[in-house]
Amino acid sequence: MKDTAVLLIDCPDRKGLVARVSGLLYERGANILHADQHIDRDLGLFFMRVEWSLNSANGNQPEKGTAPATSSPFDLNAFHEAFTPLAAELGMHWQLTSSARRPRVALFCSQYLHCMADLLHRWRAGELDCDIPLIVSNHREVENLAAFYGVPSEHVPVTSATRVQAEKKQLDLLARHQIDLVILARYMQILSPEFVAQYPAAIINVHHSFLPAFTGARPYHAAHARGVKLIGATSHYVTAILDDGPIIEQDVARISHRDQVEDLVARGRDLERMVLSRAVRWHLDRRILCYGNKTVVFD
Amino acid sequence: MKDTAVLLIDCPDRKGLVARVSGLLYERGANILHADQHIDRDLGLFFMRVEWSLNSANGNQPEKGTAPATSSPFDLNAFHEAFTPLAAELGMHWQLTSSARRPRVALFCSQYLHCMADLLHRWRAGELDCDIPLIVSNHREVENLAAFYGVPSEHVPVTSATRVQAEKKQLDLLARHQIDLVILARYMQILSPEFVAQYPAAIINVHHSFLPAFTGARPYHAAHARGVKLIGATSHYVTAILDDGPIIEQDVARISHRDQVEDLVARGRDLERMVLSRAVRWHLDRRILCYGNKTVVFD
Amino acid sequence: MKDTAVLLIDCPDRKGLVARVSGLLYERGANILHADQHIDRDLGLFFMRVEWSLNSANGNQPEKGTAPATSSPFDLNAFHEAFTPLAAELGMHWQLTSSARRPRVALFCSQYLHCMADLLHRWRAGELDCDIPLIVSNHREVENLAAFYGVPSEHVPVTSATRVQAEKKQLDLLARHQIDLVILARYMQILSPEFVAQYPAAIINVHHSFLPAFTGARPYHAAHARGVKLIGATSHYVTAILDDGPIIEQDVARISHRDQVEDLVARGRDLERMVLSRAVRWHLDRRILCYGNKTVVFD
Amino acid sequence: MKDTAVLLIDCPDRKGLVARVSGLLYERGANILHADQHIDRDLGLFFMRVEWSLNSANGNQPEKGTAPATSSPFDLNAFHEAFTPLAAELGMHWQLTSSARRPRVALFCSQYLHCMADLLHRWRAGELDCDIPLIVSNHREVENLAAFYGVPSEHVPVTSATRVQAEKKQLDLLARHQIDLVILARYMQILSPEFVAQYPAAIINVHHSFLPAFTGARPYHAAHARGVKLIGATSHYVTAILDDGPIIEQDVARISHRDQVEDLVARGRDLERMVLSRAVRWHLDRRILCYGNKTVVFD
Repeated sequence: MKDTAVLLIDCPDRKGLVARVSGLLYERGANILHADQHIDRDLGLFFMRVEWSLNSANGNQPEKGTAPATSSPFDLNAFHEAFTPLAAELGMHWQLTSSARRPRVALFCSQYLHCMADLLHRWRAGELDCDIPLIVSNHREVENLAAFYGVPSEHVPVTSATRVQAEKKQLDLLARHQIDLVILARYMQILSPEFVAQYPAAIINVHHSFLPAFTGARPYHAAHARGVKLIGATSHYVTAILDDGPIIEQDVARISHRDQVEDLVARGRDLERMVLSRAVRWHLDRRILCYGNKTVVFD
Repeated sequence: MKDTAVLLIDCPDRKGLVARVSGLLYERGANILHADQHIDRDLGLFFMRVEWSLNSANGNQPEKGTAPATSSPFDLNAFHEAFTPLAAELGMHWQLTSSARRPRVALFCSQYLHCMADLLHRWRAGELDCDIPLIVSNHREVENLAAFYGVPSEHVPVTSATRVQAEKKQLDLLARHQIDLVILARYMQILSPEFVAQYPAAIINVHHSFLPAFTGARPYHAAHARGVKLIGATSHYVTAILDDGPIIEQDVARISHRDQVEDLVARGRDLERMVLSRAVRWHLDRRILCYGNKTVVFD
Repeated sequence: MKDTAVLLIDCPDRKGLVARVSGLLYERGANILHADQHIDRDLGLFFMRVEWSLNSANGNQPEKGTAPATSSPFDLNAFHEAFTPLAAELGMHWQLTSSARRPRVALFCSQYLHCMADLLHRWRAGELDCDIPLIVSNHREVENLAAFYGVPSEHVPVTSATRVQAEKKQLDLLARHQIDLVILARYMQILSPEFVAQYPAAIINVHHSFLPAFTGARPYHAAHARGVKLIGATSHYVTAILDDGPIIEQDVARISHRDQVEDLVARGRDLERMVLSRAVRWHLDRRILCYGNKTVVFD
Repeated sequence: MKDTAVLLIDCPDRKGLVARVSGLLYERGANILHADQHIDRDLGLFFMRVEWSLNSANGNQPEKGTAPATSSPFDLNAFHEAFTPLAAELGMHWQLTSSARRPRVALFCSQYLHCMADLLHRWRAGELDCDIPLIVSNHREVENLAAFYGVPSEHVPVTSATRVQAEKKQLDLLARHQIDLVILARYMQILSPEFVAQYPAAIINVHHSFLPAFTGARPYHAAHARGVKLIGATSHYVTAILDDGPIIEQDVARISHRDQVEDLVARGRDLERMVLSRAVRWHLDRRILCYGNKTVVFD
């Protein structure tokens, strides 16, 4: 059982940031497992992810007499208290999370179940470190699958006339289940800016992405008509602007003139499953920082 | 030394096309090395590529007494004569070429030499089955490289004021050197529709292609600003519509937040070299058929 | 609903093979949807796959007065009868199958369910054109999943003492369910040569494949220790020689020093699912021909 | 013009390593551009790469009154002096290099010139930050190319009888030219362990790598005979054990039954060029740390 803390930081770049953060962790006896930084030189921004052990048993061994080692568990609350003024001084945005607190995830889907089935299987197999207390769909197809994995599903139909009401119901469900992350697993409705604003950098979507990009209702038909040699899929955070949020992951598959539209669609499904599941895993492992309209993915 | 003929066909699909073409080849004693067909069901079009040996020594062995075999070389002129009425009857577009006639290629470039250097090295190494009697550039940078590979280079400067005149000079050069194929190896000028119309499906270009696509002057800056996770390149035939001709080949490379604009540019150069050289090789091997705005690439 | 026939041929190469096969199909009024050939020049072998429509409604339109067209359904039995002497004369191995006859597939697995879950989901979603009347496992983990998809599962434990007996029971199950294809979806037992001999080119397996290859009990540990930068998976037909049968499909994923053994294992699972499901789909679509220890995959 | 320092560290993992290194850099006023760490938990090893600016003009801005900022250039010698006792205390292996000191590279090749041509073109184009004062070959083919790029080439023929003598001559050349890095750009002779021992982690080689791996004289023939669907190439540091040194980079290309041995060889050449040039660039940027038989590549 993993028992770690993760600290994610972004702030204006300046000298000494690594020294001061790592110095405080050292002082508190943190046993660092992973640390990574990134500097965006154009924007003058600094990003950092540190993960350390919360119990003293595992990890590296302090050598005798050299370090302020401790055999007691790491005191996360005390660190939080000590870090707060430092972060304020340095103008940091930061998140401090413990693996003991598992994120609570809701899955939204419509009639296509391939992403849903993939995520649920990965979750059951232990690949996704979260709780999934809720599935929401505007269709009925998901119900058997939800039942098989023991996840309650809520049917919330959506029409243009009932959209506002439906979103209100969805938001109530999310609030009641204390959801941290919403995954749009081929959910075919557009969420309103008001909905999206409730979950900043906490709604992940997947869509096709082509070379060159196609928009419109039937992208695979357009791609086939254009004769592209590659098709792709993109996972991203949802923002108020449709399909234009910070990109988390992309992948492509090679196709040829022999592939019909239905082959493109099938390949697209495989790509969608892969790029969505990777994005979800990285989010749950707190590997992603958003800034502007981009992401840093600490791998 | 390869000594083969290639027949490329496209025509309305109908029953018996393969039977009639292969029947005629069989009757004439052709020793088929490769044959491939493709049917576009939506458009009702048929495509075929057949390659056969022109001398009787190599290839498969006719069994005794079973086939109208011949030990004399294949008579390509006689086949041409016999095929013409059949093709007319079936409404075929067709090209019949012999490997004895090497395509004559002109390379156009500007100040960036990576594609040019790659193509010339491959040509020298025997990967590209063509003659290259001409390099045209609106810059001076290519001259040493051209001299090293022994290819005459012509400096044709282009400004908005002299464009018409420059194209006239370029077309004269192409005509004088009996050029079959023009390769735009990062040639940074836009060719006029009149120029392009002289060389239908005979000008190959390469450009970046992103997920999602970026247009404009500084695509790598735009891609970096957008935070894409993949960059790509596309090779295509040039048509009157800029960067929108039939796609021949595409490829991508994975990037991350760690890559700066200059890293994207460097990766892009490698992609451009690969997709352009593949397109050229396939064209020279007569593997590509254009139709509508698409290609069939018989691999 | 697809209603087509597929003819797969391999035989010694000789002149006129395409002409004679396509001539017979033309004569019988076949509406060809796909045709592909391959010639292995080193071995002097010819391979062909033709797929045509069995009803006259769809597909290309015979032009007036030019072809022996027919508006009645294609008579597959009559074609079979006519083709048999031709095939005998030309020394052909051949298979003629109709899409009306869906292959019957058995899935074998052990404790790891990722491939099984993937295949069952694809089957349910209509991607795999077959019946699956049987799951066999030497473990209990699969039973819920099997029940969810409505496939009877049989528990056949295997120990070194009971191997012969277990295989007998497995073979009885396969015979009773008239199984055409066995898929080893991470089945962790080695099948005896006697078992394998019953199902030539009809057992598909998946295993990891590394650069360079690792054998032994813990391949991902070995790959991690060696510091490879790519991991891979291979699907292949099972022959008497372990993991050495004809390769159907391979794929790789990029890894780095940051990936731990468990990351390699997770990536490996995704690769295994992809390469196994592709191999199964191609087999069911009769796209694969085995010869020697290789495959031709008509895409 | 880049003006930076890079510090590469590996040592036993322990608490406070990042804090102490970054603390010292902060104290000295270093303007950190990139920093990355890696911990191998199995072996208890810590790896770090830090790159900082050597002049004060560029980079991040110290805020008023908060940091020990300095407007004078970074004093690298003083840092070296201060870091030495810290490194000794913590049992570190370390390298401190300045971009002002360009590595001196020798290229070795035989008759195949594709890697050589690629590296020289990249060098000329400014992609490789090094001097190349020497090319060594046991063949004559490279001489024109070397002359074109203005690099002196030395012809050192090698036979089994003259190997010892030839290596002595090669080592003399390397010493005389003060070579830091030897690149085997398809050099087809095996270097003796004695030679290799002179340049630990300073000889980079490239070779094919297949799925599964083939050894022996004609790997592409073996791969073709085996019917693999992917071919690959690997770049690595040379150690006393042939083709078994720490892997730096690997890549693959997809092939099919349509590809003949010569197609595999051509694809292999492209792969070799890519993986070798990437390895060289990373080495020159001091991004690679070797340990055991593995590499950490800080990207």
